Amino acid sequence: MLQPNTVYLNGQFISNDRASISPDDRGFYFADGIYEVVKFYKNNPFCFDEHITRLGNNLREVKIGFNHLDKLADVCRALININQLTAQYAGVYIQITRGVAPRTHRFPSETVKPTIYARAFSMPPYLKEMKEGVLVISREDIRWLKCNVKSIGLLANTLLFEDVAAEGAFECLFIRNGFVTEASHSNIMAVKENTVYTHPDSNLVLPGITKAAVINICRKNKIPVIEEPIAASAIYDFDEWFVTGTGSEITPVIQINGRSIGKGKPGSITRILQSEFFKITYESLANDFSLSF
Amino acid sequence: MLQPNTVYLNGQFISNDRASISPDDRGFYFADGIYEVVKFYKNNPFCFDEHITRLGNNLREVKIGFNHLDKLADVCRALININQLTAQYAGVYIQITRGVAPRTHRFPSETVKPTIYARAFSMPPYLKEMKEGVLVISREDIRWLKCNVKSIGLLANTLLFEDVAAEGAFECLFIRNGFVTEASHSNIMAVKENTVYTHPDSNLVLPGITKAAVINICRKNKIPVIEEPIAASAIYDFDEWFVTGTGSEITPVIQINGRSIGKGKPGSITRILQSEFFKITYESLANDFSLSF
Repeated sequence: MLQPNTVYLNGQFISNDRASISPDDRGFYFADGIYEVVKFYKNNPFCFDEHITRLGNNLREVKIGFNHLDKLADVCRALININQLTAQYAGVYIQITRGVAPRTHRFPSETVKPTIYARAFSMPPYLKEMKEGVLVISREDIRWLKCNVKSIGLLANTLLFEDVAAEGAFECLFIRNGFVTEASHSNIMAVKENTVYTHPDSNLVLPGITKAAVINICRKNKIPVIEEPIAASAIYDFDEWFVTGTGSEITPVIQINGRSIGKGKPGSITRILQSEFFKITYESLANDFSLSF
Repeated sequence: MLQPNTVYLNGQFISNDRASISPDDRGFYFADGIYEVVKFYKNNPFCFDEHITRLGNNLREVKIGFNHLDKLADVCRALININQLTAQYAGVYIQITRGVAPRTHRFPSETVKPTIYARAFSMPPYLKEMKEGVLVISREDIRWLKCNVKSIGLLANTLLFEDVAAEGAFECLFIRNGFVTEASHSNIMAVKENTVYTHPDSNLVLPGITKAAVINICRKNKIPVIEEPIAASAIYDFDEWFVTGTGSEITPVIQINGRSIGKGKPGSITRILQSEFFKITYESLANDFSLSF
């Protein structure tokens, strides 16, 4: 009998309790793997193709050979179905590692198959946070220099996020060499004089799917977007800040490091972007949420 | 029946085939863990206390609560015994992760126990390489900024090492901001006019146990040591280079990026250091190897 908490591991749908990873998995030894999280809005995946394209790019970046990306759509849909998440807001987490081999830094032979693990979970929206805005706290960005790769090597992210979350922050804003890069598990964007600013895609930030969707919304709505790094010293010169991500969607930031942003409440451009984003996601499905601010 | 390939996992000695890591282990999801490798020279561990001290320091750095470091000596000895490695040169790998919990960046509750995994393996010396010297190739150091922590987040190390190993290199020399830091799984040291140079302990390099042992040998033998970063542009101004590590011990580097170091063969200071190091390790046990160059 399949359990409610059914996961996918290397071709099988099994109970998570029975899912067994070898200690020789290079994901466990070396963080030698990558991942994606796709959100399903009542059975409708958001930007599924974009997520799979990014997964493919990342596989090439880390040189993991996996030629069955086209099968992941079926895996994700099955996980949503089996776990009875079709009527909910749910996420599917997909992780691919280089596979199981005795520990040595060199890659294993090409006969070693990658480990494919995926699971579905309930992913309700951050309604209160999206309405009222959140606080963020900044830390030095100590991550590696391939942040464009969505690798499972997230110890820096978890250490820094834990540090600021303990102080009540929703996210940790990263500063590298005096410039804002992104946040511990979101991209970050700012607004000044009705123009949206964000770090350009580079090795220092993840090419966010939601970030790209927001830029697309801006273009359609004639909101100018400037993709350039923002100096940490200029943070308070901006009228609005918000984080974007598969989980955080578009969440306004109303305070950074204890100091209010703009009028200390979500700004007007952020509201327009949320509204347009929800047209694609929530509102297209049902008016469950009173998100028309 | 215990198998020859017996490992330790959370209090049990079991066959590696039966060792099962949960996909919810934060080591698998987040590289949220640290490790050590100790070498046993025919049942004699080298600098065991130093390794355990470093493990303790690392646990504090990443805030993993584990209060049984004193029991690891028994675990390591048992692994060497059970796997019939007492008469060999063997290694024990110890990995500690933050434990098993549903995936979220925040740390789990303190009731979640860390995962402790350890295994023993044959670790013969790199005799040919130690005698004849090796080639290394440099790459930009793209790792995170806590390289002093021996974390399992080693994707940068494996990617860069694989890249140069495919070209015949024994190690990948890392260059950050124009200065030599260390290598992908070794420290690196150089010699000029009979003085030994190496990067000082900092957030950019692992505080190597073998490196410290070499510095100690230098002091006892009145060989001056200068701990300061070496500019990449000055690499060929040095007479000798060698890498140090639990696995590589003291291995001379005779070529960097295709260009010979010194006379293109292991240098005299490297030979003195090897000889003194082997007095502590190999020669104290048996004259198995004709390592008196």
